[in-house]
Amino acid sequence: MLRNPLILIAAASALACTLAQAVPPPAKPTMQQVLEASSAADWRRPDPANTLYLDLASGRVIIELAPHYAPLHASNIKTMVSAHYFDGLTILRVQDNYVTQWGDPDAGDAAKARSLGSAKKTLAPEFERGIDANLPFTRLPDGDVYAPQVGFSDGFPVARDPKGGKTWLAHCYGMVGAGRDNGVETGSGAELYVVIGESPRHLDRNIALVGRVVQGMDLLAALPRGDGAMGFYTRPEQRLPIKSVRREADVPAAERTPVELLRTDTPTFTALVESRRNRSDEWYKRPAGKISLCNVPLPVRRQ
Amino acid sequence: MLRNPLILIAAASALACTLAQAVPPPAKPTMQQVLEASSAADWRRPDPANTLYLDLASGRVIIELAPHYAPLHASNIKTMVSAHYFDGLTILRVQDNYVTQWGDPDAGDAAKARSLGSAKKTLAPEFERGIDANLPFTRLPDGDVYAPQVGFSDGFPVARDPKGGKTWLAHCYGMVGAGRDNGVETGSGAELYVVIGESPRHLDRNIALVGRVVQGMDLLAALPRGDGAMGFYTRPEQRLPIKSVRREADVPAAERTPVELLRTDTPTFTALVESRRNRSDEWYKRPAGKISLCNVPLPVRRQ
Repeated sequence: MLRNPLILIAAASALACTLAQAVPPPAKPTMQQVLEASSAADWRRPDPANTLYLDLASGRVIIELAPHYAPLHASNIKTMVSAHYFDGLTILRVQDNYVTQWGDPDAGDAAKARSLGSAKKTLAPEFERGIDANLPFTRLPDGDVYAPQVGFSDGFPVARDPKGGKTWLAHCYGMVGAGRDNGVETGSGAELYVVIGESPRHLDRNIALVGRVVQGMDLLAALPRGDGAMGFYTRPEQRLPIKSVRREADVPAAERTPVELLRTDTPTFTALVESRRNRSDEWYKRPAGKISLCNVPLPVRRQ
Repeated sequence: MLRNPLILIAAASALACTLAQAVPPPAKPTMQQVLEASSAADWRRPDPANTLYLDLASGRVIIELAPHYAPLHASNIKTMVSAHYFDGLTILRVQDNYVTQWGDPDAGDAAKARSLGSAKKTLAPEFERGIDANLPFTRLPDGDVYAPQVGFSDGFPVARDPKGGKTWLAHCYGMVGAGRDNGVETGSGAELYVVIGESPRHLDRNIALVGRVVQGMDLLAALPRGDGAMGFYTRPEQRLPIKSVRREADVPAAERTPVELLRTDTPTFTALVESRRNRSDEWYKRPAGKISLCNVPLPVRRQ
């Protein structure tokens, strides 16, 4: 039986308590033990103004936007969300080991396409940004195939090129981006995708990532793959409807799903990374001693 | 709109022909153009004696075993397959961004567990093997976070440690392994898993990989995620039944699904890797110039 690399917070807490009573703690803590020892200050609430609820019949997907990396896109998406642009649109495309994409199935037909209202149809590309001393960066120690440096910034996986002075969000599992056509300004945020397979890092710096799914990835990753080219669904009835997309800030308190995310700029996060580089669970016979950017888990818990 | 990184052979051939007539070829060929220019010798038929058909109600999954890396496991699995061990068993577990696993839901209950017949219940671990001059190895140029060297061997993604003299199959999307408990000899091949998310390379050298899904990954990756710990289904009716698992060699010709796989030891494969390191499609504005092991596509076509 394989061991779970993604933590279930409740189960982990119970396990850690049991272990603490029964056996001395191992020299190297497991991720469960790191989380059990975390304090309230190790966790943060995503800003409700930058948190989206994508509600499907199957449940709720929660997306945290990344305005520090894609301010124009985040703003444009929030303009659309406030105007209920996405409500009643659909999942358009599910390509195995790549992306799930949603938006307006009639976007290509000017006569039938839904209006973007006051949102912009094109945006300046936000594929990278300047490195800024005020931008948090917790660097990973083991390098990367694609970039000189990788790590985390405010909970997002990022890459950096210090020589070029640039940093950018990285295409890891669960990252959300704004689909575009060949023109670099054609991604408005009206059509969004999420990574559901091996991290397609070759997309980095070619398209604007705008945020990350922090809950509900299973609802987007387990969908039937599309039968058309690039995984597009070919028949309207195949397209899963989107009930609504709302900003958390606009949702009544009783309907919210408040989550907390582990901060990525703390000693606890560094300990979590180390617990994954060198696993002390009995199952592992040869700890990797390394970790790649997109294999670092980003724990989420209900508030 | 994102561009498809996984080729559809038929569509690609048509596209390449159209392009050839309409515009001069770009200096750097696309993957489609590399495949269009391939010859019959660039492709191989997997050995029917080492090819498994895992038939579900939704379709056929084709698995190529890797006897050069896991001979004991491949042999034991074939013994079970010949005795129809897997027929009527089920998918047990689907954990998002990790694995789909199948086997006997009653394996833990000695009174109800299906007999392994003449197959072995435990096997010596085959987590790595010695580097051998007779073992093909097409090395990738861009390094790896986890291992000193990575590349391909007979169509399988592999890693190498020349100093230690070892090589091993790598946990990329679609790789199939033999689940085990804490003991290193407890993986018999009776319970198998396939990677359905970000490559869990920390599993490398900790468990025996036994082969690779070459067709039908969508059938295993789009399944509902399990509601129990580690993605196990908690109710029998959630478990998708396996109609049968057969060796291709044992299947009547009329029922076979003959595929061809691109060889990984040819100039064509090297050109394909280069076409993915530096994409010449108009959509890409900043070719990555690099590629990671698990992002290299392994094209498959119907014979």
